[in-house]
Amino acid sequence: MIAPTPRPPYYAVLFTTLRTADDPEGYEAMAKRMVELASAQPGFLGIESVRGADGLGITISYWDGLDAIRHWREHAEHRLAQQMGRSRWYEVFRLRICRVEAERIFDRQAERQ
Amino acid sequence: MIAPTPRPPYYAVLFTTLRTADDPEGYEAMAKRMVELASAQPGFLGIESVRGADGLGITISYWDGLDAIRHWREHAEHRLAQQMGRSRWYEVFRLRICRVEAERIFDRQAERQ
Repeated sequence: MIAPTPRPPYYAVLFTTLRTADDPEGYEAMAKRMVELASAQPGFLGIESVRGADGLGITISYWDGLDAIRHWREHAEHRLAQQMGRSRWYEVFRLRICRVEAERIFDRQAERQ
Repeated sequence: MIAPTPRPPYYAVLFTTLRTADDPEGYEAMAKRMVELASAQPGFLGIESVRGADGLGITISYWDGLDAIRHWREHAEHRLAQQMGRSRWYEVFRLRICRVEAERIFDRQAERQ
C-alpha cells in the first residue's frame, strides 16, 4: 500500500536490506509484528514495504519528526528485533533518515473524475 | 543492490508506485532504460529498486542536490517516460523528495573482520 502521508514536511526512514537465507518464517513473523508495533507509536504516519525475488528489500516508514523516530528506535521489543537483524536476518543493510520536503501524487481514478 | 552513497547530507527521490496490468514488456524496457540514463546524469549517487509480487514498487534514487534532481526531471527522454507513466503504466504513485540527514550501515562480512 502507498502510505497516505500528510503534506510535507515530515520524516522518512529508508531501510534497505539484503536478507540472509536464515529462518524465513521467524523473520516474516517478526517483520509483521514490527509493522504492527510501529503503526501504534506516537508520530507514526505510514509505512511502505517491498521485498523482491532477489532478496533486496526496501521498507520506508514515515514519521512526524525526529523525536518520534528516536522513540521508536528505543522501543524495547524493537531493540530485540534490531539485535536479531544483526545476528541472524540481514547480510547487509543501510538505514537512512531523511526529511521529506516535497511530494507529487498521481491517481488514475482521480484524474478521470 | 544497496546504493553505496557517500556520507550525508545528500538527496533522495522516493518513487512508490502501483502498476497497471498494461504492457509489462514495454514497461520493463523503459524502466531499465531510465536506470541507465539516470546513472549517467550529473549528481547521480545511486539507485535502489524493488517490485513486489503484489505490484507495489519502490525506487529510490540518490542525488547530490536539488539541482541534479531538477535537471533529471527535465531530461527529454525522461519526460516522455513520465508521460507514459501517467497515460499507461501507473495506477497510483507518490513521488517524495527528501534530504538525507543521517545514515547507519551494517555489513555482516565487515563485522567478522
